[in-house]
Formats: sequence, structure tokens, C-alpha cells
Amino acid sequence: MTPVVIRTKKRAPDAAIADLAGLGVSTTHEAMGRLGLMKPSMRPIYAGARIAGNAVTVLAQPGDNWMIHVAIELLKAGDILVVACTADNSDGMFGDLLATSVMARGGLGLVIDAGVRDVRDLTQMGFPVWSRAISAKGTVKATLGSVNVPVVCAGALVHPGDVIVADDDGVVVVPRLEAEAVAAAGRKREANEEDKRRRLAAGELGLDLYGMREGLARAGLVYRDEDS
Amino acid sequence: MTPVVIRTKKRAPDAAIADLAGLGVSTTHEAMGRLGLMKPSMRPIYAGARIAGNAVTVLAQPGDNWMIHVAIELLKAGDILVVACTADNSDGMFGDLLATSVMARGGLGLVIDAGVRDVRDLTQMGFPVWSRAISAKGTVKATLGSVNVPVVCAGALVHPGDVIVADDDGVVVVPRLEAEAVAAAGRKREANEEDKRRRLAAGELGLDLYGMREGLARAGLVYRDEDS
Amino acid sequence: MTPVVIRTKKRAPDAAIADLAGLGVSTTHEAMGRLGLMKPSMRPIYAGARIAGNAVTVLAQPGDNWMIHVAIELLKAGDILVVACTADNSDGMFGDLLATSVMARGGLGLVIDAGVRDVRDLTQMGFPVWSRAISAKGTVKATLGSVNVPVVCAGALVHPGDVIVADDDGVVVVPRLEAEAVAAAGRKREANEEDKRRRLAAGELGLDLYGMREGLARAGLVYRDEDS
Amino acid sequence: MTPVVIRTKKRAPDAAIADLAGLGVSTTHEAMGRLGLMKPSMRPIYAGARIAGNAVTVLAQPGDNWMIHVAIELLKAGDILVVACTADNSDGMFGDLLATSVMARGGLGLVIDAGVRDVRDLTQMGFPVWSRAISAKGTVKATLGSVNVPVVCAGALVHPGDVIVADDDGVVVVPRLEAEAVAAAGRKREANEEDKRRRLAAGELGLDLYGMREGLARAGLVYRDEDS
Amino acid sequence: MTPVVIRTKKRAPDAAIADLAGLGVSTTHEAMGRLGLMKPSMRPIYAGARIAGNAVTVLAQPGDNWMIHVAIELLKAGDILVVACTADNSDGMFGDLLATSVMARGGLGLVIDAGVRDVRDLTQMGFPVWSRAISAKGTVKATLGSVNVPVVCAGALVHPGDVIVADDDGVVVVPRLEAEAVAAAGRKREANEEDKRRRLAAGELGLDLYGMREGLARAGLVYRDEDS
Amino acid sequence: MTPVVIRTKKRAPDAAIADLAGLGVSTTHEAMGRLGLMKPSMRPIYAGARIAGNAVTVLAQPGDNWMIHVAIELLKAGDILVVACTADNSDGMFGDLLATSVMARGGLGLVIDAGVRDVRDLTQMGFPVWSRAISAKGTVKATLGSVNVPVVCAGALVHPGDVIVADDDGVVVVPRLEAEAVAAAGRKREANEEDKRRRLAAGELGLDLYGMREGLARAGLVYRDEDS
Repeated sequence: MTPVVIRTKKRAPDAAIADLAGLGVSTTHEAMGRLGLMKPSMRPIYAGARIAGNAVTVLAQPGDNWMIHVAIELLKAGDILVVACTADNSDGMFGDLLATSVMARGGLGLVIDAGVRDVRDLTQMGFPVWSRAISAKGTVKATLGSVNVPVVCAGALVHPGDVIVADDDGVVVVPRLEAEAVAAAGRKREANEEDKRRRLAAGELGLDLYGMREGLARAGLVYRDEDS
Repeated sequence: MTPVVIRTKKRAPDAAIADLAGLGVSTTHEAMGRLGLMKPSMRPIYAGARIAGNAVTVLAQPGDNWMIHVAIELLKAGDILVVACTADNSDGMFGDLLATSVMARGGLGLVIDAGVRDVRDLTQMGFPVWSRAISAKGTVKATLGSVNVPVVCAGALVHPGDVIVADDDGVVVVPRLEAEAVAAAGRKREANEEDKRRRLAAGELGLDLYGMREGLARAGLVYRDEDS
Repeated sequence: MTPVVIRTKKRAPDAAIADLAGLGVSTTHEAMGRLGLMKPSMRPIYAGARIAGNAVTVLAQPGDNWMIHVAIELLKAGDILVVACTADNSDGMFGDLLATSVMARGGLGLVIDAGVRDVRDLTQMGFPVWSRAISAKGTVKATLGSVNVPVVCAGALVHPGDVIVADDDGVVVVPRLEAEAVAAAGRKREANEEDKRRRLAAGELGLDLYGMREGLARAGLVYRDEDS
Repeated sequence: MTPVVIRTKKRAPDAAIADLAGLGVSTTHEAMGRLGLMKPSMRPIYAGARIAGNAVTVLAQPGDNWMIHVAIELLKAGDILVVACTADNSDGMFGDLLATSVMARGGLGLVIDAGVRDVRDLTQMGFPVWSRAISAKGTVKATLGSVNVPVVCAGALVHPGDVIVADDDGVVVVPRLEAEAVAAAGRKREANEEDKRRRLAAGELGLDLYGMREGLARAGLVYRDEDS
Repeated sequence: MTPVVIRTKKRAPDAAIADLAGLGVSTTHEAMGRLGLMKPSMRPIYAGARIAGNAVTVLAQPGDNWMIHVAIELLKAGDILVVACTADNSDGMFGDLLATSVMARGGLGLVIDAGVRDVRDLTQMGFPVWSRAISAKGTVKATLGSVNVPVVCAGALVHPGDVIVADDDGVVVVPRLEAEAVAAAGRKREANEEDKRRRLAAGELGLDLYGMREGLARAGLVYRDEDS
Repeated sequence: MTPVVIRTKKRAPDAAIADLAGLGVSTTHEAMGRLGLMKPSMRPIYAGARIAGNAVTVLAQPGDNWMIHVAIELLKAGDILVVACTADNSDGMFGDLLATSVMARGGLGLVIDAGVRDVRDLTQMGFPVWSRAISAKGTVKATLGSVNVPVVCAGALVHPGDVIVADDDGVVVVPRLEAEAVAAAGRKREANEEDKRRRLAAGELGLDLYGMREGLARAGLVYRDEDS
């Protein structure tokens, strides 16, 4: 593939993004039919952050962060930088200077299938990152990659403009054109959960709440007392 | 194996469990003769929790949390849910609704050789979990497994009614009938450590405190000055 | 190799060590020409610690911590204990009693390519550890190893007396005789970064700040609008 | 996503597929601009096989091979079955009976981001498989997935009808519409290599053959005799 | 646990063992209800071996093969040595001299959740090994373990006298008292497979052979032509 | 570190190298006192090769094989190319063209802590490679590294001119100045083994041959009949 930088204006609707940020990763993932999740190797550098925004994608060579500089120019307020590599890599391709630049452009955070460094500074800046590794390993700026092409990041397909939702549970990708439908399904699911939570807290069993006893019996589940 | 749910009344003595909770994982493991430990891939979702309780065991199909619902009905106050899978899996088989239900039954926490989700909620609820992964990946409810059968969880054999001790150092399994003896050995070991800690803090060397110098010399250890 | 304990007086200059502690791992690693880093599998047991000191090295048999006791006698104030194993191992070779002893000798912390335990106690004591694992697995004291020989620890070569710098980004090794030059290069690099940080925060792009546009064009980077 | 089976007639041109089979994975991957490769965790069950064919894709639940039975009905002569899972899994989802069925339909082989079993039988049948694991672990048939939707398999995006090339070096995916161009680029590359191989075998250095000396000098490479 | 060597006479019936050797791992595992399998990280050192025999178990310290020497004395003709470690380890705990000794005692092979070495010699001797690693790393003989106690080996519980079945698909453990029933179930399953294999080879689909179409439809599977 | 290429004439004595090739990895590693071994992740691309030769070392950037071309010019007959990376990487940095060039210079083989490709061709050429991965992933030629500097490769320290021994058991590094002593110790060890092998084959137990019974008893080993 010829290295290329795509200037795109595609963004998901702001209201849907705000809803997804409120729902979080697990509910969004369920609302999508249990798809779109990145691998659990993607972990936040500090607990408690939750963001949602449009993806600006980068495809980089392992150990080379040149294209991240290119991508930052294309960031708009509310965007999230998503960095994939052409091969597995844990180098610290991103640190506090790049984060300063992303924040100055209105970017919300970083999702990177490689390493990140300066994590103490990033934590103090309140700049959230989801990565496969923390590593001080420095990188070169020698080989072109691409910006805003579709990428596979930590096992998930990401198109530029897709909505990224990230929190302590991981990272999920919502295709741009499905964002509103997923947000609606998620809100419905959440409303539904509140009543369940109350009933479970009161001691009602999931077996009864979800009506599972019949299905279990039909599947052949047998109960036995230990001494029988 | 036919899927089966065993109703058991076997529990370890409360006093032994309370002692083991006070001793923690490392001391308990030493008191057992360095056995019973789960693999270090089992990590707590937040720091500082320490629990001990009777195991209620689940053997589940990867990606299927049906049997966890079944097991919750069998929980008694002070029990710990222990979930093993028939194959390696990191799916988020357990979240805040299930935790609400476990807490309503008096369960103390979860040990799962798979993934967990809603970790921010679980942390706020003070519901401790030790797992091999954090993952939003949703699960199905389609295939039977078993409850309260012996399981191998993260490399350790667990019988229903065994005592699980879990803290920041990991998870250890104490066979039910050994719980009192192990607790006694652990208390003795701990009493012993207090004096050692004081002497080491005062600058005494372990080489002298434990009388190691002779054994090292007999094994042939040689000291050399760099320039000699 | 015959097991041996080397008594050495080689230490790096205190001023250089203090400088490196201030610079931290990522800056030090860059100042060394991007060398000397341990693998990112080495993680701190708690966030926020940053230390630098002279290495006292241990080469141990997996599952055997006898030589750590030997090494502690050789620690001087400001030293850092560095433990390598002859084979991959995650056993908890070090706990709160050993940490008490290290602190009593003036040691600053531990870097171990194996496991550590009693992490709650170590955290409360403010004793920092970088390790590949947290594990309660106890160890034996049966086989000799060596102290203060060159070791490969987590992929990095460490000579006794080299400077170890460790923080949230990982662990880097600075050869003793290069410590002053690396510290000087690091201070220069850091001074340089302050201006960059200010300009990036003001919205200037890295592409312009670092003058990258020409190099990217020369390498053949193409920009394209999505609809063209 | 609603589970769905797509009946598609999209196939790449036979001549391009034949060319790609001749070129093999490494040359095809280079001809694509170093893209499209699955992760190196995908290994053949026996050495020496090389196949190319149109992908029929399956998205399966971990530990559940129901949809593989569904997909086999859609296989045409020369197709390759590509199985992705919704979460990491190593279960033996495929064995000699399924292979018998695939061969009866004219299928060429299997690429599966999970496990395979009966590998001795498969080897004797000459049925090639690339998988992440070999495992006897049996699977259930309980949960729907999809057939002939785009999937991410071992880190690579695969659309139904894309060309899969697999050999001892791994597995590469060629988008259907690029198959002819990639085949042409690969043939050109290969022709080019024959002359290079002859010259290198005669002792000519790559430094001269590829004209690298100037670039290395410009980048600042320094040669030094050991004693200087 | 006090280190102990148990002299046991428990063996499974020879006829059942012979049957299981004929059935192989995958069929045996299915006949057991999909239980008893070791992790797929256990791989044979050469392809094509298939053995079944009574387990003589060893629990060893990582990096220490002393107890293997002890266990060999207890081997009877037709036994298989099963070595578990108290912590993850890949050291080469077994080589051609030990294999010579095992063969002289009539032992059939080795299953070890650690490393093995001299694999070229072992291959030439026709001595089959299933291990998690191949490694030349030598071991010490310094710390006691146990022989013929129940062990967890590669995730599976093994009692002395259980039947081990091992081939290219991995390793499965059949509890001694279930050996005859499992062998019977396996033979029945195999007889059943021959007819299926013939029909599938003739082009009949698994969908029809196993009557899956109704279940799939009831579960909601939808077929769609690409252009509809 | 400034990138640098060192021209060195240091080589180990030919006779010692020939002896080590005959002894193989496991015996050499034992003769060195169980040191110098690379990690067991280093595997041969085909079984049965055994080589020994002087190391020519390369330190490369992940995903960049430029320096391998530089190193080949420095190869002398009987040398082995040893490639380390500045960060973990599995890219296919070496293929059949480079192997053709190495063979034309008299090089014996490759040890690379990264990936290799064209393995079918390399196998047919009889060019042995030990690597951490097989991968078709292509590399760039953009960033300098160094040749003939000391490197850490797969956990082992290698100086240029050290002797590399590699076979089916892995890869071991013998420091140049120790080569003759290690070869002598290895020959002695091997002579010793022949008698042991004969006695073990005749049924003598290692317990008796090595006189272990007393040590085991002194360490406290207890034998017990199952029913006592």
C-alpha cells in the first residue's frame, strides 16, 4: 500500500457519542451484539477514565512514531487517536510531549496497540491512554505509514470516524453509521438494568429474575445432595 | 461428565477461616508447606482486599456464564465463588449485576480463571475479584457445566468447601480438613516473624539471624575482593 | 561458573546518580542513545516511585533466594539490589522481611526478574520493587549462585556498580563509567524539552516544531481528501 | 450483530490465484506493500504445504463449532475456510470428519484462529491447516455466529472472496479486487530475485548489489578496527 | 506437605489401556465428556507417537530433577512418568540418560510440565516426550518433592495409576476407575464415526447428517443472498 | 550509543570449536557450569542441525534489517551471524537471499532474536536458523544499528568472537577465552556419560549409580506404602 494521509470530515453525531461515553464499554459492547471489542491486552494507564470520541487512525511501523506527528494535525476537538502497528510491538511510541500536543488540538486520549511512556506525567495531566504496554523504549522517525486508513488495532477493525469508547473494562469500536442505533440500544439496556439491580440486591435470584430454571432443566441439569 | 449441581453442607470451621484471613496468602502458603497456590496470572482488580471463605466451585464452558447463575443460589454467607473454565478464556463472565446478587447472598468475592468486567463498579461496591483478565467481552448462556465439583482453577485443585484465601499476593487453596492445622501453623509462623522483623530492622543480617554462614561455606561459596 | 561473591568498591559518582534520579527512565534511556532498557515486563508494585542507585547484582537459581541473603550484607547506602535468575521464574523470592533488612542497610529498592510477595506490606513500608510478577510462591535456600558478577536481567546487561534508574516507565541501566556523560546529556535534553512543551501546548504542531514536513514529502508521503 | 449467513458469488480470478499460489506468502506480502499478514502465531500443522484460494469466512463463539458446519455447505472447489473467533480460544474446533467434508466439497484447507485436532489424520489426508494451536479440546454446538461476513482473523481483515495464501511462512490475505495487481507485482518481484540470487551466490555483497554503501555513510555509519 | 514417596500397586486394567491407546487423545477426551485434557502448551518432541499407560507422578521444585531419579525406581512396565512442578518452569529436567533408565524399567514415555533436552537423542531412541518446552537448561538435585501423590500437571489433575493417553493432539488423563467405561464409550464413538466419515466423504453435509438445520433455524439463523 | 561497525580478528581456536560442535548444546552448557544459554523461545526452523562457530553480532532496530547486510561483509568462513534487536520483535528480518549471501561468504547459519522467512527454501538449502518466530513480515532499511558490539540476544550476552553452539536443544554462548577449557570439560563429561548410559541401560538405577539414597534420606525423604 502506498503510504497516504486521508483528510476526512466523517464524524459520528455528537449526541450519540455523548450517550456512548455515559454507557461505557461493557454496555456498548452488549448493545452492539457483543462485537467490536479490542483484545483485553489493551489496558488503561490509570483507573477511572472513560472517554468516547471519533477515531483518527494511524498505521505505523513498529518502533517508529513518525506518523503520529502527522496524525495530530488532523485531530479535531473530541477526537481520539488510534494507533495500530504493522507488527506486534511494545515500544514507547508516545509520551508527554505528544500528549501536550494532542490536548492542545482538543484530542481526548490515545488508544495504541504498542507501548506508551512518561505515564506519571500523563497521569498528572489527566491524559488517558489505553495500550498493550508501558515502555520507555524510544522510537525512530524513519519510515512512512498511513493516517486515516482502516486499521486492525488489537484485533478490532477501526475506520476513521468510528466511535471509540474506552474505560476500565477496555476499548470498543462502534462503526460510525451504527453509532446512533447502538446508543439507543445501550440506553434501553441500561434502563432495564436498574430494575434488575434493585431486585438482585433484594435477594431475588438471577435464576428466577431471568427465568432460567426451565431452560436449565430442559438442557438436562441435575441437582444432587452430596450424601445421596 | 454429566453436568451436575452438588448441594453440599461441607464448610471449614469459622475460626480457622478467620485466622487464615488474618494471616494472608503468603503466610498461609508457607504454612501449608508451599503448596496450594494458584498461578500468579490471577490478579486482584483493586489493591488492598483480603478475604478468606469457603469455596463454591463452578466448572464453566469458555464464554458461557450460565452456571454462575446456578451457583449463586448455593452460596451461603462467607462463601467465595470459584470459577474454572474447561479451556483457557478471558471473556468477561461476571459483572456488577452478578456481584450485586452474590453480595445479597452474603458472598465475599470472586476468584475466576477467566475475565471480569464492570471493574469500576465492582471497585466502588467494594466487591473483590481475582481474575486472569479484565474484559468487557460478553458471554452466552447456552451450555451446562457443573457446580460444586472438584475443579482445577489457575493450576490449583479446589474442592467445594475448601478455604480460599486471597489478597494482593494472589490466591491460595487450603483443603477443608487441613484448615485448622494450617491456621495453627500460620499463627506460629507469624509470631515467629515479629521478632525477626525487629532484629532485621535493627541491622542484624539474615546470614546471622538464620545461621546461614556455615551452610554457605560448606556448599563452597567463595568470597573474593575485586582486585585480588 | 564457580559460585562467587565479589566484594567491590566501584560506585558511580553521587552527583550523577542524583541527576539521573531527577531525569527518570525515559529521558535517561534517550540520553544513552536508546539503549540499556530492561524489558517492559518489569513493572513497579506501586505507582509513583522513582529511584536511582548503584547496582549490587545477584545471579540466582529459579525458586531459590539463598543468595539474596548473601547480597544484602554487601549493600551500601544508596544501593539497589538487582536479581537475575538462571531461567525464567516468577516465584516470590523476596518479601517484607528481606525488605526490612535492605532498608536497614540503606538500600533503596529492588529490581528482580522473578516474583515478589508481601506487596501490601512493601507498599506501606514505601519500599519500591520492579518485578516480572507478584507471587506468594515460597522459595528454597539450597543452591549457590553468585553476587556482584555481571548479569543479564530482563534482557539488559548489568555490572555491579552500574547505575539503575527505575520509575513508572520501567528500568534502565547506565554503565558506571558513562553515568556522568549520560547525566549531562539528559539534563541538556530536558532543558530542551521545556521550550518544546510550551510551544506544543500553545498549539504549534510537532510537524513544524521539528521541521518534519520536508522529510515526509521527500519520503513520498501523499495527502488526499477523502472524496478526491 | 444479527447472526447471518451470506451467500456470495464473489471470487477472485483463477489465474491470479494460481499465480499467488506459486509466489507464496512472503513474496505476496511484499508485493502488497507489506500488508495483509496474519500474526506469526498462525502455524501450519505440517511443513511443506502451500495453497491459495478464495476465503469463505466464519465468525464463531469460542469453543463452539456449529457455524463451521454451516459454512461447509457454501464452499466451492478451490475455496479456503477461514475461521475467526469472537474471543481468543485454542479449542480443537476442527478435526478429521470436518476435513473429510471440506475435501468432498473441493475445499483446499483451513485457516483458523483457534485450535485443530486429529492432526495425525489430517497430515495423512494431506489436508493443510494453519492454526494458533493444536488441541484435542472438544467444542459445543450451541450458539449462532455468522458466515461470509468480514472478520478479523489473527490480526488480519478478511472479506469473503479475498484470496488467502498460506505456506510455511504463514498466512497472507489479498483483497479480492487487488488480486490481479498483486499477482503481477509479485511475478515481477520474483523475476527480479533470480538475478539477485545468482549474483549473491557468486559472492557479490548485498551492500554493492543494492547500492547501500552511500546511504549508510550518509546516515553516519562509522567503521572502526578493533584496536584503533 | 511433607515430601513423601508412595509405593502404590494401583493400576488400570491392561485391556482398557490398550483400547485407549488405540482410540487416541481426541476420542478419549470426547468419551470422557470433554474433560481431563492437559493444556495445549504440552507438545510432543516428535510427530507420530501415541502411547497409553499408568501414571507414576512426580511433584518437583522448578529447576530440580532429584525426584525424577526417585520415581524411576517405582516404574513398572507400561507406566508413564508424569512430572508436575510447584511453579512454572521450562528447564530441561530430563535427557537421554534418564530416558535410557526409564526404558530399561519398561516405562513408555514422559509427560512433563517443564522442559526436556537431548531431543535429537530421544527421537533416535524412539522415546516419546510431551513437554511445555525444549531447553538445554541444566537442573540441580537439592530439594525434595513427592512421588505418587496427586498432582496438577498442565492444568489437569493426575492421580497415580490414572491412565495417561498422549499423541499428536496432546495429553488426556483418564481416572483409573473410569478407564473401562471410557474405553467402552470411546470404542462405540469410533464405530459410529466410520459411517459418518464415509457419508461425508461421499458429499453428504454435516448439516444433514447431524440433522442441524432445524436447530439452526430455531435459534434464528438467517440466510441472505449478497445482493438482496 | 553511536552506531558503529567493528572490524575484529578475534576468533576462538578451531579445534575447540570443532569439539564443541561435537558435544552439542546440552553438554556444552553443563560444561560451562550451566550458564550461557539463550531462552528456550529460540527454536530451529528444522530438526537435526548442529553447528558451532564464531559469533558476528548485529544490534538491529525492530523491523529493520539494514545492518544484516552490513554484517555479512564481515563474515569469515565458519562464522555464525547473531542478530539481537533493541526491542522484542518477530518480523521476518532474514530470508533466502540473505542466506545465499551468508553461505557464499562461508557463514554456517543464523541465530536471530526475531523472525525469519522463506523457511521452506532455507530448509532445502540446508541453511540452519534458530529464531524466536517464523514470519513473512517484511522489514525496512532505514535506521542504523551496530555490528560486532556486545549484544544481549534472547537473554544471553554475546561478544563478537564468542563461540555459538546450536542444535535441537537450543543455543549456548561460550566466551571466546573459555572455549578451550569448556571443550575440555565437555569431552571429559561425555566420556563419563558413556559408561553411565551402559549401566542405566542394563537396569541399574540412577539412585545407586549416582549414590543418591543417602542424601535423600538425610534430606528427610519418607517412603510409604499406600495402605499403611
